[in-house]
Amino acid sequence: MSEAAAPVRVVEETSAYWRVVFDYPPFNIVDATIFEGLQDLLARMDATPSVRVLVFESANPEFYLSHFDLTGKTGNIMTAVGPSGLPILLDTFVRLTKSPVVSIAKIRGCVRGVSSEFVLACDMRFASRENTLLGQPEVGVGLHPGGGGIERLPLLVGRGRALEIVLGANDFDGDTAERYGYVNRALPDADLDDFVDALARRIASFDRRSIAAAKNLLNQVALPSPERLVEALNSFMTALTWPETQQRVQALIKRGLQRDSDFEKRWPAVLGTLLEM
Amino acid sequence: MSEAAAPVRVVEETSAYWRVVFDYPPFNIVDATIFEGLQDLLARMDATPSVRVLVFESANPEFYLSHFDLTGKTGNIMTAVGPSGLPILLDTFVRLTKSPVVSIAKIRGCVRGVSSEFVLACDMRFASRENTLLGQPEVGVGLHPGGGGIERLPLLVGRGRALEIVLGANDFDGDTAERYGYVNRALPDADLDDFVDALARRIASFDRRSIAAAKNLLNQVALPSPERLVEALNSFMTALTWPETQQRVQALIKRGLQRDSDFEKRWPAVLGTLLEM
Amino acid sequence: MSEAAAPVRVVEETSAYWRVVFDYPPFNIVDATIFEGLQDLLARMDATPSVRVLVFESANPEFYLSHFDLTGKTGNIMTAVGPSGLPILLDTFVRLTKSPVVSIAKIRGCVRGVSSEFVLACDMRFASRENTLLGQPEVGVGLHPGGGGIERLPLLVGRGRALEIVLGANDFDGDTAERYGYVNRALPDADLDDFVDALARRIASFDRRSIAAAKNLLNQVALPSPERLVEALNSFMTALTWPETQQRVQALIKRGLQRDSDFEKRWPAVLGTLLEM
Repeated sequence: MSEAAAPVRVVEETSAYWRVVFDYPPFNIVDATIFEGLQDLLARMDATPSVRVLVFESANPEFYLSHFDLTGKTGNIMTAVGPSGLPILLDTFVRLTKSPVVSIAKIRGCVRGVSSEFVLACDMRFASRENTLLGQPEVGVGLHPGGGGIERLPLLVGRGRALEIVLGANDFDGDTAERYGYVNRALPDADLDDFVDALARRIASFDRRSIAAAKNLLNQVALPSPERLVEALNSFMTALTWPETQQRVQALIKRGLQRDSDFEKRWPAVLGTLLEM
Repeated sequence: MSEAAAPVRVVEETSAYWRVVFDYPPFNIVDATIFEGLQDLLARMDATPSVRVLVFESANPEFYLSHFDLTGKTGNIMTAVGPSGLPILLDTFVRLTKSPVVSIAKIRGCVRGVSSEFVLACDMRFASRENTLLGQPEVGVGLHPGGGGIERLPLLVGRGRALEIVLGANDFDGDTAERYGYVNRALPDADLDDFVDALARRIASFDRRSIAAAKNLLNQVALPSPERLVEALNSFMTALTWPETQQRVQALIKRGLQRDSDFEKRWPAVLGTLLEM
Repeated sequence: MSEAAAPVRVVEETSAYWRVVFDYPPFNIVDATIFEGLQDLLARMDATPSVRVLVFESANPEFYLSHFDLTGKTGNIMTAVGPSGLPILLDTFVRLTKSPVVSIAKIRGCVRGVSSEFVLACDMRFASRENTLLGQPEVGVGLHPGGGGIERLPLLVGRGRALEIVLGANDFDGDTAERYGYVNRALPDADLDDFVDALARRIASFDRRSIAAAKNLLNQVALPSPERLVEALNSFMTALTWPETQQRVQALIKRGLQRDSDFEKRWPAVLGTLLEM
């Protein structure tokens, strides 16, 4: 696959600063292909001592990454293990958090479920004030976050807001996400690119050893344990097998999930009445 | 006692969503009767698999729950143990946090001391922007929070703001409480009922197993240890015996605490000059 | 040295409430002299049972404490140990956090690097809305925070914002610092003195035993471990020896650091292009 057409595309702004563009039509749904792209990226980062900072963005302003594929195209990402010894899904997120390279999520559009867990695994999150819908709607589908969202959110927003995000299964706009600490800050959409670009270039000018030492020390006091992450993923895989869950998943697919662009933008809004129609 | 007149009254909106109304004139003071009502409620929750969400509110818009009874009517709640093996006061709060049922505090009026600790033990807190006075004034009475407030606050608001709340012994209004993360959010009073009702009905429509699994996983990373809670309660009971503390308690009672409605609304304001008059 | 001319000057407002004024021209740079003053203060606090609260402020509205001396005048503060058994730099901060006396930082002006770590070691932080520049610029100098900043920030602002503060190496104004939880609150400059004075006098009226018990209980759940602090300091001392770091330090000094008042106010702004000129 040519670089220009890759679902996870790397644009080397400089040798120290890469933009990573999600471009996987129609909705940037997170399936085995996206994780394959992220695993390739991690290998490339590990092999490139010059790189200091990554900015993750989407080619589609309406969908950053939409959500976990619910039609079965997730391959073996929950069972096969990656270089860290954890299942690929967790391995991807844990290696991103532990990398000496700084990761910044520049968020526009819908970011739900596993996609929220991806941005929570990034080092920083900056969101468009006008154009962000961020959330963990899994409980409304009979599931629960299984890729670290439950473990990372309380450290950012506290137990009360984490429970509201996880149990309410609602979307959060940019301003509310900032107020809760779910993102670092929400910026006017027109300012977002320049703000993140300036921060990335600034960090890219710093010494890699200092960045690595600082991030490593901070990680010692601010990351969930692998044991907790594994327990959540196992519990998620169990929940996938519950008949009530499959009933909710099928109801969503029948309504248009992963097919109808309009429904794909607003589906968490219907979760409170999903089985009534 | 008929349900309609109970100090802790349950209104079953649906089989999955209960409103719990504090109605204990004149000021909803927290004494052994309130804890008895909460213990009965916990037993009823444990025996009712249909229930998914509770909203706790007050029949009196000026007092949510006012504060711990300082005239001796607290029975054996700090010494007798409940089903968890912890003293009733802690047992009540810990069982609420660990229940598979979701608890939401809908706050209007004064919420101080042990009442603040009650809302901190709920899963989420939503407060009236215009009509909330929330605080931990114990240190100004020669005591300190003993029902989990000291252990739960830093996880929500960080050490600095927690120390300000606990050592400053002041009231916090809705907006400041939201800014600090002491409550999930403050809403205009006119919007509070609808917002909380919609959230409760939404959660009530979700599968109990998903809710329970998500809350249980989140609790693993966001609850204080029972040992810390017990140490704080023991320290609180010791402080109750200090002569300086009794002097402050008597000064408050002489000024009108638990008797004078106007004083009951504003008493933390006088704590900085309590012994001067 | 007469009290009136001391770099760390104590003004006893009452026997229970002391103001501590940093007055070390030209820029309140943090060197061995400042730590000597703080060590003397801690000894005096330990010997004075009447004192309940300290407010730390600056005689110079443009510099609260500027930053760690980068010209070698830091004596043995990183190697000689203090009464806690930790190196003087950490001993000072750790004893401040564990003292039964309440510490409040009243912030105006520039507060960077070790100075930020000092205010993070205080119990509370209140900042001038118009006149605060707070940050941890060390990574931009080839170093990283080594005096507890990396360990304390995530507990206040979460991992994402802590990484932005530490890796971005930028200044934060009062409003942003409040929004992030880096300070308790930012107040209009005209209100700052009265607000902090009222809070300090209020706390000073409370019983020392209650204050001490509350602070001690809260510290049990909200302080980093000494082991983590020591590892960060050791890593910082290693980073000081890196040639790339010395190159950045010399570039800053050549530009005017610790010499030119205008540059001293704005130097973090140039860190992203430090080696380009």
